[in-house]
Amino acid sequence: MMERLCFGIDIGGTSVKLGLFTENGNLLDKWEIPTRKEDSGSHILEDVAASVSKKISEDRLARENIIGIGIGVPGPVTEDGTVIHCVNLGWGVFNVEEETKRLTGFETKAGNDANVAALGETWQGGGRGYKNLVVVTLGTGVGGGVILNGEILTGSNGAAGEIGHITVNYEEEDRCNCGRQGCLEQFASATGIVREAKRLLKISGEPSKLRDIATLSAKVIFDFAKEGDALSIQLVEQLCRYLGIALSHIAHVVDPQAFVIGGGVSKAGSMLTDLIKKYYENNVLFALKNKDFKLAELGNDAGIYGSAKLIIGK
Amino acid sequence: MMERLCFGIDIGGTSVKLGLFTENGNLLDKWEIPTRKEDSGSHILEDVAASVSKKISEDRLARENIIGIGIGVPGPVTEDGTVIHCVNLGWGVFNVEEETKRLTGFETKAGNDANVAALGETWQGGGRGYKNLVVVTLGTGVGGGVILNGEILTGSNGAAGEIGHITVNYEEEDRCNCGRQGCLEQFASATGIVREAKRLLKISGEPSKLRDIATLSAKVIFDFAKEGDALSIQLVEQLCRYLGIALSHIAHVVDPQAFVIGGGVSKAGSMLTDLIKKYYENNVLFALKNKDFKLAELGNDAGIYGSAKLIIGK
Repeated sequence: MMERLCFGIDIGGTSVKLGLFTENGNLLDKWEIPTRKEDSGSHILEDVAASVSKKISEDRLARENIIGIGIGVPGPVTEDGTVIHCVNLGWGVFNVEEETKRLTGFETKAGNDANVAALGETWQGGGRGYKNLVVVTLGTGVGGGVILNGEILTGSNGAAGEIGHITVNYEEEDRCNCGRQGCLEQFASATGIVREAKRLLKISGEPSKLRDIATLSAKVIFDFAKEGDALSIQLVEQLCRYLGIALSHIAHVVDPQAFVIGGGVSKAGSMLTDLIKKYYENNVLFALKNKDFKLAELGNDAGIYGSAKLIIGK
Repeated sequence: MMERLCFGIDIGGTSVKLGLFTENGNLLDKWEIPTRKEDSGSHILEDVAASVSKKISEDRLARENIIGIGIGVPGPVTEDGTVIHCVNLGWGVFNVEEETKRLTGFETKAGNDANVAALGETWQGGGRGYKNLVVVTLGTGVGGGVILNGEILTGSNGAAGEIGHITVNYEEEDRCNCGRQGCLEQFASATGIVREAKRLLKISGEPSKLRDIATLSAKVIFDFAKEGDALSIQLVEQLCRYLGIALSHIAHVVDPQAFVIGGGVSKAGSMLTDLIKKYYENNVLFALKNKDFKLAELGNDAGIYGSAKLIIGK
């Protein structure tokens, strides 16, 4: 008998990533289509259905061999598949699982994109072998996902794992994208460390290689920190301190086996995880020390992997 | 057929509370025995077994009608029933479920006392009707329990729900019982608010009714706050601010339906929950607002109720 297949789909604000997977987690093919946001995003799932259908006929796949479709969306999704305002897509409130099933004929499971990426890393990435872990994605924002007993913790309003919005600084005056002040995302994202760098360069009189750079980036700051630039080190330390503290809060709630750090900023590698671990351990009970700190491995494919796993199940 | 029965047992540092329950949650009888801590606490479970056996013969209970025994212990307990150093009892590392079964002949389930009390409040107390909630106990220390889908979240080392040790103040110089500095417990426990009161009375020149009290207590501080005493209000506000912030951290991790506040400090009632909710809402994403804030209802019996529920199961 042929191995069964499924589609893992990751809907972003600019493009939709699609992947065709075997049940065992082999990615057979992946491709992208643009995200059509006009008409309140009402064509997005139609385009997904057309792309899935095209793939099936091009590859002459047997429909009865396909388990179904998993979908990650950029916003809260409740246990029953209801999305609650995906601002980036123009979506209101509706059941994305039912709608996708109506358009494709396939069973569908949906989840929040950050949670789904966490599931992907747990299944086939840096979190392989753990059943209880927390995945943090440091990109433009800070996303997260809590995996308990191998499954996504969704929460009562689909907002579990929104760790980018844990308050870490009570004196911050700038506003986060969420409207509040002092969120982890304002300090630990790629955008956040650049914002902090600009601020520090203004108030500090110290020389720094950062002053010669026209367009600052998280990568430049980490590279200069590795080369010993004092202000860059200070910025990296601050990012890791805030992140370590936020992870310590999380550990006192769910006591995971491991933390997996992903997103663009995680390219800094062990310098990042070692420092995060230092600040983490300063802020936890003895019983919570000695957690594993791993790097994510799937990059931008984490979302399609996790979506596929959603529909495959445990 | 007779309704089945079980024992719910809560082992504390001074006394062991025992309860005889029906499967539906009726407490038929409760009593206490002293906690014998000599010989590394090796007689504690023997005394429990003797007390259970005495009860059975006194009440002429049919052994085949008894489901088993649930036990709460003051320390971390892993999923398989292993206790990992109960400092207050003198216990090292052993399987408390197997040992209790050996001594009594009954199936046994064990859990951490704060987690078990949270389960009790969920089953028959202030958390009735919720499946996902967080219970916080403000007593001598700050205990907690996370209930997901009606069950205790234990964590990989039995340390989930240890929310009293979330760091909330990064400048604190006094040490918490855990050895670290700035834990929630140092500010939001009955002991913590008294410590803060003594400190505030020293550094503030303001008049306050608190200055006339020989032995300060959390109750006095809350009573005076209700009467309008400015320093007392300041102390209550600080406690609620730290607690509201800690609960906001928790919400970004597990997104519960409700919070239940118990322990001696919770006798302050709605003044406490209203203020906690205010600070909580200032520190959460929009999707996490509008949680229910309830008061615990079972008082010191929460532990025996929760232990009974442990062995009854879902």
